[in-house]
Amino acid sequence: MATNVENERFEMVKKRHFQSFHDAVTNGKADKPAIPLCEFLNSLPEFFTASSCSGRVILLNVDSMETKQTAAFHYKTHGLASAMVSWKKLSEKTRKEVWFKQESFILHIGTNHLDNANRLLECARLAGIKRGGIMLAKPGKFILELQGTQGISAPIKYQDKLLVNRDYYEFLVRRANKKMKKNSQQLEKFEKILREKLGSTD
Amino acid sequence: MATNVENERFEMVKKRHFQSFHDAVTNGKADKPAIPLCEFLNSLPEFFTASSCSGRVILLNVDSMETKQTAAFHYKTHGLASAMVSWKKLSEKTRKEVWFKQESFILHIGTNHLDNANRLLECARLAGIKRGGIMLAKPGKFILELQGTQGISAPIKYQDKLLVNRDYYEFLVRRANKKMKKNSQQLEKFEKILREKLGSTD
Repeated sequence: MATNVENERFEMVKKRHFQSFHDAVTNGKADKPAIPLCEFLNSLPEFFTASSCSGRVILLNVDSMETKQTAAFHYKTHGLASAMVSWKKLSEKTRKEVWFKQESFILHIGTNHLDNANRLLECARLAGIKRGGIMLAKPGKFILELQGTQGISAPIKYQDKLLVNRDYYEFLVRRANKKMKKNSQQLEKFEKILREKLGSTD
Repeated sequence: MATNVENERFEMVKKRHFQSFHDAVTNGKADKPAIPLCEFLNSLPEFFTASSCSGRVILLNVDSMETKQTAAFHYKTHGLASAMVSWKKLSEKTRKEVWFKQESFILHIGTNHLDNANRLLECARLAGIKRGGIMLAKPGKFILELQGTQGISAPIKYQDKLLVNRDYYEFLVRRANKKMKKNSQQLEKFEKILREKLGSTD
């Protein structure tokens, strides 16, 4: 059983994360497709959501370190990508290397007990989410990371020179959008299962 | 504390997984770069390794379901890829769609207690492994999944027609090999940290 100190600490952490989430929604900085799922989890006393992404299609400027810390987004959408708009963005001056990426959702969810972490893992399994787990397990504070598996990642521009032609780029965007649709379906399925399994039975 | 029944169950599971690992090594089916790390973990009473991959470069035949279950490898290496060999493989008749992929390591490690799972997570953090966590948490049986973040994934052939030219393909292979080297370095770092933190202090 969690001690009073652990319970108080959990309440505090949940409150702080809820404030961040609330601010992000208010300022239009939260990914729209993930808002209902996050709102639902945040409404439950035992759970909160931390920084999460609902999935995205991006053009990423990458330097020789190839890390996101030193990289910058050249195009980004959490919805379906426009080949026309992003191709136009590509024609602008860019840095060392540009990669085209479609990334699936990545959710960070906090909870107070291992039992509740297990309930979340069970929901993830039922939704067919194969990647993820409890990444932090302390008395009174468990953080889970859950990830979709859809993904595209390829270099498409090097030293301001395009490496691929427009036909291929449009093919990439079509595949990315197909994967984004599958990604949304899985997120929706997960939300539905969470509401069924964790929701109130009033 | 784990009960006797839980301890016995853990021993049995560890034994079964060790036999699978031993068979894979004997039959040359284990990924060579991951063998020392797996051997070390399997030598400890509290840990075992389950199906793991040290990282790979593959050409994957994908059907309309785009799942690995229904897909087939057209080329696969756990070391550095040869652009020449794999390009030649590409010229053979292939099915609906072929994707070029570089995937990082994915390790599955079992242990008997949450405390030991936490020791593993701490080692992963120290090695800079950002993806993964405890994916199964039952009394006496904890399974962790740890993953590298390097990756490339792009379609390169559709209905027996190449989508990219050889120059671009060679660029892709160079980037894949660069990522495979980073992947190996991270695996080696993780092994070193595991030996330091979990090894015997005799």
